[in-house]
Amino acid sequence: MAYFRLTLEYDGTGFAGWQRQAGGERTVQGALEAALEEVCQAPGRVTGAGRTDAGVHAAGQVAGVEIETSLPAATLGRALNARLPADLAVVALEAVGPDFHARFDARNKLYRYRIWNGPVRSPLDSRFRHHVPQALALDPMREGAAVLVGTHDFASFQASGSDVVETVRTLSRVEVTGGPGGEIVCELEGSGFLRHMVRNVAGTLIQLGRGQRPVSEMPAILAARDRRKAGPTAPACGLLLVRVDYGFQRDSEGLAGPVLDGLGPLG
Amino acid sequence: MAYFRLTLEYDGTGFAGWQRQAGGERTVQGALEAALEEVCQAPGRVTGAGRTDAGVHAAGQVAGVEIETSLPAATLGRALNARLPADLAVVALEAVGPDFHARFDARNKLYRYRIWNGPVRSPLDSRFRHHVPQALALDPMREGAAVLVGTHDFASFQASGSDVVETVRTLSRVEVTGGPGGEIVCELEGSGFLRHMVRNVAGTLIQLGRGQRPVSEMPAILAARDRRKAGPTAPACGLLLVRVDYGFQRDSEGLAGPVLDGLGPLG
Repeated sequence: MAYFRLTLEYDGTGFAGWQRQAGGERTVQGALEAALEEVCQAPGRVTGAGRTDAGVHAAGQVAGVEIETSLPAATLGRALNARLPADLAVVALEAVGPDFHARFDARNKLYRYRIWNGPVRSPLDSRFRHHVPQALALDPMREGAAVLVGTHDFASFQASGSDVVETVRTLSRVEVTGGPGGEIVCELEGSGFLRHMVRNVAGTLIQLGRGQRPVSEMPAILAARDRRKAGPTAPACGLLLVRVDYGFQRDSEGLAGPVLDGLGPLG
Repeated sequence: MAYFRLTLEYDGTGFAGWQRQAGGERTVQGALEAALEEVCQAPGRVTGAGRTDAGVHAAGQVAGVEIETSLPAATLGRALNARLPADLAVVALEAVGPDFHARFDARNKLYRYRIWNGPVRSPLDSRFRHHVPQALALDPMREGAAVLVGTHDFASFQASGSDVVETVRTLSRVEVTGGPGGEIVCELEGSGFLRHMVRNVAGTLIQLGRGQRPVSEMPAILAARDRRKAGPTAPACGLLLVRVDYGFQRDSEGLAGPVLDGLGPLG
């Protein structure tokens, strides 16, 4: 049996999310498993670092793969990219040990939520940005974001109906950059995220930016542990999983070293 | 009769180009005319500054509109944006005189050709960048671009079969920026362009960057006035019409002043 760690980039617009579904919907996991089986002539087991929802994008989703194959990593990567659809690609791939677990070993994740804040929608980036036509004030958004940094019970920002009971998470960074009349970016970095957490935070920060509620409510929203207190879930299109870090394995050379070069058609 | 100048942004992926076609294909001009007729309950005449090809994008295409309406510009813009499809929007609109002609009055156009130069394709930007996996050297691309600046007969870079006889054009700027292992951008600015000219220039510069032919051939390619001497036509997806300038009407306030603000739902 061979074990690999894959880094995936995808435009989530055409996928019904990460996770393979019984109904045969087009999913990232499903497309990857189909390509793996075609290349290796054996069924593969694929585990994602996080299960992105329908319409959510990734620049650096990570998946663990367990499959019967003698192909070297670079050959496997090239063969997969030749078969994967245009909206999904393996951008890095390396052999790992059998104990690697893409989800449980992940130490840190970075999510980016992009907002187009202008009076007129922008067709060129509509797949990747949520359009908010009303002017957003950055200061309250930043102040609200600062309240969330640290270890808190984020139950107020978890998708209603979620069956996750342990809702304490640690955010090391929540930043709002950009400006009104242009692109506003919210970045959230932390060791773990609840379902819809980034989109529910983004929806709440947008309420603050629009002046629909004062930033002084933010501590109470967090303390309530009640989904109804936070703002609406911002649309999936604005959300990008930027990267997943695996402790000591992430260094200054990063994942995009020789293995990435080896994935190209000339490698 | 009322006359307007519209600035349009579109993702060209889903359009069979700018120009309305007899076969009923989905075109930018066709979509705009349909929205105009619906809003004004009268047929409108639409003239584009340039006829972008199928798959070519625009951040600032300009169209002249002649239509029977009493609607003020901002109202018309909002009504159009409410009816136009998600991949097309009016980003600025102003009333002009009956003598305005979007095509003949255009003084200057800026085109941008984007290349993703990395071993692995990038799904997140595949609609807007041409993927060249082989490493491109920037110096020969820049030297080749410099040969094209000025007033020349660009017949070698005109689409074969084109019936345009006067093929002398003036390019004020041809610039290549970026770097290998990332995005490379070719910008061409000039008073007029032949059919496929930017894409044929991009295709030729890519040949130079790949080392498939020496930059010393560029003057001979230009002098030959023969389409067969230049490189292949680079794919439409990489091309963006950035903006069209109309002489004195372009000033430091630009087109994105009060009229743009007026197009938003809160305007």
